[in-house]
Amino acid sequence: MKFLHTADWHLGKIVNYVHMTDDQRYMLERFIDIVKEKEPDCIIIAGDLYDRSIPPKEAVELLNDTLTTLVNDLQIPVLAISGNHDSPDRLQFGSEMFRRQGLFLDSKLKKDREPVTLYDDHGPVHFHLIPYLEPAEAAKVFDDDSIKSHNQAAEKIINDIEHRFDSEERHVWIGHSFLAGGMESESEERLSMIGGSPYVDASLFTNFAYTALGHLHQPQRVTREYIRYSGSLLKYSFSEASHNKSVTLVHMDEDGTCEIEKIPLHPLRDFKVIEGYFEDLLSGEAVSNQEDYLHVRLLDDGQLLDPMGKLRQVYPNILHLERKRSMSNPEMDDLEHVKKRQTLSHSELFASFYEDIKGDPLPEKRKDMIEQAVHALKKKEREQ
Amino acid sequence: MKFLHTADWHLGKIVNYVHMTDDQRYMLERFIDIVKEKEPDCIIIAGDLYDRSIPPKEAVELLNDTLTTLVNDLQIPVLAISGNHDSPDRLQFGSEMFRRQGLFLDSKLKKDREPVTLYDDHGPVHFHLIPYLEPAEAAKVFDDDSIKSHNQAAEKIINDIEHRFDSEERHVWIGHSFLAGGMESESEERLSMIGGSPYVDASLFTNFAYTALGHLHQPQRVTREYIRYSGSLLKYSFSEASHNKSVTLVHMDEDGTCEIEKIPLHPLRDFKVIEGYFEDLLSGEAVSNQEDYLHVRLLDDGQLLDPMGKLRQVYPNILHLERKRSMSNPEMDDLEHVKKRQTLSHSELFASFYEDIKGDPLPEKRKDMIEQAVHALKKKEREQ
Repeated sequence: MKFLHTADWHLGKIVNYVHMTDDQRYMLERFIDIVKEKEPDCIIIAGDLYDRSIPPKEAVELLNDTLTTLVNDLQIPVLAISGNHDSPDRLQFGSEMFRRQGLFLDSKLKKDREPVTLYDDHGPVHFHLIPYLEPAEAAKVFDDDSIKSHNQAAEKIINDIEHRFDSEERHVWIGHSFLAGGMESESEERLSMIGGSPYVDASLFTNFAYTALGHLHQPQRVTREYIRYSGSLLKYSFSEASHNKSVTLVHMDEDGTCEIEKIPLHPLRDFKVIEGYFEDLLSGEAVSNQEDYLHVRLLDDGQLLDPMGKLRQVYPNILHLERKRSMSNPEMDDLEHVKKRQTLSHSELFASFYEDIKGDPLPEKRKDMIEQAVHALKKKEREQ
Repeated sequence: MKFLHTADWHLGKIVNYVHMTDDQRYMLERFIDIVKEKEPDCIIIAGDLYDRSIPPKEAVELLNDTLTTLVNDLQIPVLAISGNHDSPDRLQFGSEMFRRQGLFLDSKLKKDREPVTLYDDHGPVHFHLIPYLEPAEAAKVFDDDSIKSHNQAAEKIINDIEHRFDSEERHVWIGHSFLAGGMESESEERLSMIGGSPYVDASLFTNFAYTALGHLHQPQRVTREYIRYSGSLLKYSFSEASHNKSVTLVHMDEDGTCEIEKIPLHPLRDFKVIEGYFEDLLSGEAVSNQEDYLHVRLLDDGQLLDPMGKLRQVYPNILHLERKRSMSNPEMDDLEHVKKRQTLSHSELFASFYEDIKGDPLPEKRKDMIEQAVHALKKKEREQ
């Protein structure tokens, strides 16, 4: 059995006011080229197909085009789940009809769900599609109030699988969660901390032949070779500038042993951080592709006249311009400040605002209240 | 050939702050009962499946449930088009995959489109699915700038059909437009008047064995027995209180002659206008179902203490309360005024606002500007 594992497409993503749709369309066309070349038996998309619950229509069109090509034209089964960015209700539209066409799109966990079972010469492989869900939702599905954390939810689902299915056969977990020990990027939305930690323990998955994860944007294994994040389709922040994005081709043999091949994804425009003096950068030689999305760090000390305007004539897609910190230039403090803020979660951002206004740090009790309010708002958005 | 014709479901509709979803779900369950009883060869939904381009998730769920039942469980082909309320881009998601399941959902007119052809013992019947489109969109599809009105667009499409297909065979037009001579209700959104009239001439359709229309909410024939609006799923305003909503069952014979059967739709809660004295109405006998949506006209002259609160204890779903116009009660003027305003189009509403503020009527030239601005905004909303 040979399958391609991808995740975190985030269609409809906007980075610094720039719509990523063209980049995403380009990348998905390359993805389809990879599919044609490698001819996998199925394709896994481990959540966050869209970047938000009501995506722009261009994103809807792009997902439609891509899935239609894979499922209708290339006739390759697609196994996809919703992530924390997707709207389970909206993504469910048509899913029953799609199943008969070979598109298995699960956005709501049901209690007695069945895996999608595909066969190779050695017998069945059971793919368990586990959409992202809050611990409270898992508690409801299993009618078990003791489920309070993401880890407990995963544990419950895994027990259920191990109890109901033949563990001698090959099983694949498709999930969207944050495994303890995984490396974060800035562009992932933090998962809910209500009721404890957002983490799931990787050791839970040791009985699965392969664990196909979404959520973390950097391609990586966690503790074992066969417990993997494919990483996102594209870089979605400068914290990912050093990533090498890829999709993961998994060759699974008779006894479930997996051989992993990372197939690189080369984007239309890369995310890069460049550093230099203004006059030097104007030569245009700082990057091989001047269309790249750039975070520019200027080393110049003195005043510069409209550096952004001038640099954009050479590098049209500069998203950030940062000046070297200089005490003689108070503006720089602001820039650093803004940059720092962009890395904060909603709750941290509020805590920082509170401290700015009140002069005292946010008390622990209030921190909890804010955390709950942020959680409630995100939940509401997700349910839209 | 036997088919059911329905239209204007407007899922997600809100009438006076009340979500109609429960009523729509009830009615669609009855609709499915009708389908099971009558066993049509196919089902036509002639546009306005949703009430707006981004419908609430409950509406998405309801449409999904209904179509899944019809297509997957009952295995009856569904032929649906988008209306002026639907978002063509969003409704198109999955449509290629759905076709193979027997759901033909067309939201974008293409130039060399093919009809959906179904067969009975006498041969083929060609169903032409013509989604709602603005004249400018039709001009683009056919690369013909002379198309300026809805009528010209329909003419062009019909010429194309008559030119490309065997006119000896049976053809059905499925469209969403305003036929001249049709009876309007208040709940229909006016179509664009840019570039002339919103009307299409019914005589264009005389070569079609049956013309299945959506847009007007009252079930009706226009000029011929076989040119019909099925009417909406439910009453969506009090101007429709006297309508008898139905779906249309069409029995088409060998030579295309159609026998029409109107199957009544009995809603969970009816829309009714009732009139009487406050004390009399409190008995609860004014309607057979106290849960009905009511527009209450009170005939009392004098002051009443919280009539709405008291009446709602008996009739919980009063949407309007109107007091008999009385010069001794200046509030009544406001009520009449509000009621009148609710019947106005966006442009008329602006003209009335302009006159209120300026004291002079809105000049013709500015009327055109407003008409264009309203059109642009509606177009933008539609394109979302």
